[in-house]
Amino acid sequence: MVGSGEGDSSVAEAVGRELAAGGAVVVCGGLGGVMEAACRGAKEAGGHTVGILPGPDRAAANPFVDTAIPTGLGEARNALVVRAADALIAVGGGYGTLSEIALALKAGKRVVGLDSWDIEGVVAVADPAAAVAAVLGESLT
Amino acid sequence: MVGSGEGDSSVAEAVGRELAAGGAVVVCGGLGGVMEAACRGAKEAGGHTVGILPGPDRAAANPFVDTAIPTGLGEARNALVVRAADALIAVGGGYGTLSEIALALKAGKRVVGLDSWDIEGVVAVADPAAAVAAVLGESLT
Amino acid sequence: MVGSGEGDSSVAEAVGRELAAGGAVVVCGGLGGVMEAACRGAKEAGGHTVGILPGPDRAAANPFVDTAIPTGLGEARNALVVRAADALIAVGGGYGTLSEIALALKAGKRVVGLDSWDIEGVVAVADPAAAVAAVLGESLT
Amino acid sequence: MVGSGEGDSSVAEAVGRELAAGGAVVVCGGLGGVMEAACRGAKEAGGHTVGILPGPDRAAANPFVDTAIPTGLGEARNALVVRAADALIAVGGGYGTLSEIALALKAGKRVVGLDSWDIEGVVAVADPAAAVAAVLGESLT
Repeated sequence: MVGSGEGDSSVAEAVGRELAAGGAVVVCGGLGGVMEAACRGAKEAGGHTVGILPGPDRAAANPFVDTAIPTGLGEARNALVVRAADALIAVGGGYGTLSEIALALKAGKRVVGLDSWDIEGVVAVADPAAAVAAVLGESLT
Repeated sequence: MVGSGEGDSSVAEAVGRELAAGGAVVVCGGLGGVMEAACRGAKEAGGHTVGILPGPDRAAANPFVDTAIPTGLGEARNALVVRAADALIAVGGGYGTLSEIALALKAGKRVVGLDSWDIEGVVAVADPAAAVAAVLGESLT
Repeated sequence: MVGSGEGDSSVAEAVGRELAAGGAVVVCGGLGGVMEAACRGAKEAGGHTVGILPGPDRAAANPFVDTAIPTGLGEARNALVVRAADALIAVGGGYGTLSEIALALKAGKRVVGLDSWDIEGVVAVADPAAAVAAVLGESLT
Repeated sequence: MVGSGEGDSSVAEAVGRELAAGGAVVVCGGLGGVMEAACRGAKEAGGHTVGILPGPDRAAANPFVDTAIPTGLGEARNALVVRAADALIAVGGGYGTLSEIALALKAGKRVVGLDSWDIEGVVAVADPAAAVAAVLGESLT
């Protein structure tokens, strides 16, 4: 399972598609932008998506979220996205994404970055296929 | 969607089965006892189950949970179970269940009780079929 | 430390005053009504008050809160009020108060009720002095 | 109000002392290391300290915390530290501190760093006096 944040939508869609193709559930913050793109990609590949929302209302989830969890916790829900994930693929560079990177590294989880923050511990990769391979532990050959 | 608590396992299993048969997703606290029974019932009927766990580890979910959310919030996760549900079927009478009943009534959600707390606002019913009918808005005739 | 909920303001003010006089810190939800009355009473007696707020903004605290904690957790903050308290004095009968009673009983903390919910485990008392005595463990004679 | 994280204890103690001398309440995570040093400094200067703890037990607070809030939320409590603060002084460079920096910047709060993460938006300063001046809005001359 993997969460993601702000960034390039076509990249995020490809990440979602590859994750689902690899058998992973896509976990994210459930809103629009990159989160929606990742969910859309996962659904194209027949995957399952989980959106852990900041607000109290399930209706705020993007239309590609299968299981919406309306936490009502605001940004504190970022900690829940990280807990629900086995590893994190960070796409792009918002501060919300940075908080998830930090919490995942603190928890000892693998963090892979695609055009994201240059933080010690983040594995920077060049494209969605490499990101998903790094997370799912498959060989790249 | 519906959460539930401590109580009679065979009753909870029937509630889960009827909910799934009616097309509802079963949301619960994800642990054992009545929560496990409700999830087992839902899976027997081909439904989808969500477990919102108190601890930080997905492995604590019972084996019939499809989507496990390890919140790490302790009992504060009861508020998330209630938020994720459209209505609540309370089975039995523990204090955790009582806190969920209270939060659901505060949020203006329908609460149906099966051998549960006698609180103003809780609709007491006699059996699982009546509970699910009351929650899914079907006629009992 | 003690939390409280909806109910009679003059009763709550007396509870706050007696708690402060007994050396206890008053912990509550930090908003108006009974919560404000309890804090006002505590300040009259020179005590310290803590308000654990549902919203993200400290400005929502009533003017008698010394330490305001703006959680942004919504009703999930009720669990934090209970965790922060050594015992609970429930004043009156709202559903928010009921959820705090349930969480406190689940955690094995003493719960004293003043014209509040009639739940197994709640010690019903007749007046603020008896409530505070029951919580602080003093003799009533 | 200000939170802080891992790093140099003598620096943190000076930050706490200066904050208290400037009339600010010191808010932090309430545990040991830099958090304890900041609280100790604040108490030396007669200030008030608040510790927002990850665990459910108030006893985990360091001895210089005046008001301990045992959240039981784990690392999700970092979001509450940030919410409770008007600005953040980050001391040193752990991942927990990084998550607080990210959440504070996301919320539009001022973040000042003392030998901390080099993140866009963090105001790096050279010593505790400059950090407190930057946060309390005083002139440095």
